[in-house]
Amino acid sequence: MQNLRLEIAYDGGDYAGWQRQAGAATVQEEIERAVELICQTRTTVHGSGRTDSGVHAFAQTAHLRLDRGPASERLHLALNSVLPEDIRVLSATVMPPEFHARFSARGKRYVYRISTARVLHPLLRRYVHSHGRAVDMAAMRAAAGQLLGTHDFLAFSSNPGVPRKRPTIRTLQALHLLPDRAGFAIWVQGDGFLYNMVRILAGTLLEVGKGKLAPEQVGEILSSRDRRRAGPTLPAHGLALLRALYPREFQVRPQPHGRRPSGLGSEKGA
Amino acid sequence: MQNLRLEIAYDGGDYAGWQRQAGAATVQEEIERAVELICQTRTTVHGSGRTDSGVHAFAQTAHLRLDRGPASERLHLALNSVLPEDIRVLSATVMPPEFHARFSARGKRYVYRISTARVLHPLLRRYVHSHGRAVDMAAMRAAAGQLLGTHDFLAFSSNPGVPRKRPTIRTLQALHLLPDRAGFAIWVQGDGFLYNMVRILAGTLLEVGKGKLAPEQVGEILSSRDRRRAGPTLPAHGLALLRALYPREFQVRPQPHGRRPSGLGSEKGA
Repeated sequence: MQNLRLEIAYDGGDYAGWQRQAGAATVQEEIERAVELICQTRTTVHGSGRTDSGVHAFAQTAHLRLDRGPASERLHLALNSVLPEDIRVLSATVMPPEFHARFSARGKRYVYRISTARVLHPLLRRYVHSHGRAVDMAAMRAAAGQLLGTHDFLAFSSNPGVPRKRPTIRTLQALHLLPDRAGFAIWVQGDGFLYNMVRILAGTLLEVGKGKLAPEQVGEILSSRDRRRAGPTLPAHGLALLRALYPREFQVRPQPHGRRPSGLGSEKGA
Repeated sequence: MQNLRLEIAYDGGDYAGWQRQAGAATVQEEIERAVELICQTRTTVHGSGRTDSGVHAFAQTAHLRLDRGPASERLHLALNSVLPEDIRVLSATVMPPEFHARFSARGKRYVYRISTARVLHPLLRRYVHSHGRAVDMAAMRAAAGQLLGTHDFLAFSSNPGVPRKRPTIRTLQALHLLPDRAGFAIWVQGDGFLYNMVRILAGTLLEVGKGKLAPEQVGEILSSRDRRRAGPTLPAHGLALLRALYPREFQVRPQPHGRRPSGLGSEKGA
């Protein structure tokens, strides 16, 4: 029995998110089907967490346990031969048995990209949210500073109908506003993110950038724990999971060539 | 009668190229249809040149002559409201009557992007050709040096069946090999390019990068004027027109915000 870790990139535009569900194309289902074809065994592929419908991944981490088939560090090439081209397994690595993509994860990095150009460039339309005008980056930076650290982020999460029982305290370790030629990217790292949290953080910062909210109000919204006071949930297609973070003993070497596409990810310091 | 210049960006993936043709979706036809809807007049939109099926544009220049409708520098916003989202008019500028997108052009810039990663990133799949392994960049640079300047580029052009009557002498003013995180980009500027010339130049340089051709053979291929000796025509989706070049009196100001998407174009010094 091998414990195999996969790093998976995908264009989420045509999927109903990561997680398997009846009647919808999902990334998890596509990978499990590819494993079944190649390894002749049906097994669960556990992701580091869900990504929502339409959200992309530069590197989603997953693991699966295999006792047959070509369970090796070249399995990803076989999987890619049967996967649709908008999902690619970047690497396969044999891990210690205790590695679990979800439970071993210590955090996540995401990027949300926003175009400030009057006209959104058509080559970016699937990956960048179009705001269409200039923003006040200094005000957004001042607001971002109030979000860093350990807080109850309830105001920055969607509650899909059911009373929330799980704790909503998270640590936002970094939030960078990175100008790029299309506009800017919001780069975040945290120990975990609530449902829709990155998209609501981005929507709230954009309200500050538009002058609709003052930077100091963002701290008040955080304290209020009131979702209605925060900004809108920005569209899914601007969001990408950059990577899941693991403790040192589970770190793997990067892909030898060009593991990040230039410009699309704006991953800082990685 | 106004002479209106349009700067047009498009994702060529779903089009049979720029030029109008029966029974196929083309960029020119889409724009002429948008002009007809907005301006209530059917008129030809003249491009700076054709782009082939599947080739993208960061900025294709076109012009049209209009005597009715909202012929102004905000026309592009109205056109975008009826264009498919993979075609965007970035700007509209009133030009002197003598401006002609094709006949006034003094040159073109193109970029051809190649991924050297073992696995092509899915977010790049529509815009980057996957080579899938490392290349010898120094050898490619040595070969590129032999292509610069004024030559008969017949060996680097496709001849679609008919005897070629038009001159095949062109000046390649610049060719840069620009490493990026996905691999590298081949950036070219010339006074004009023959049919498929950029894709064949890229295919020939890639043969050098693979070690299949020695750098000094590229000069011999050029002298031979023999298409069969040059490398393959690389696929269309890696190619993008960056811009058409015009003399100083026809230059227009760039779009105020983010006129180039970060990373996708690798446009150097522009």
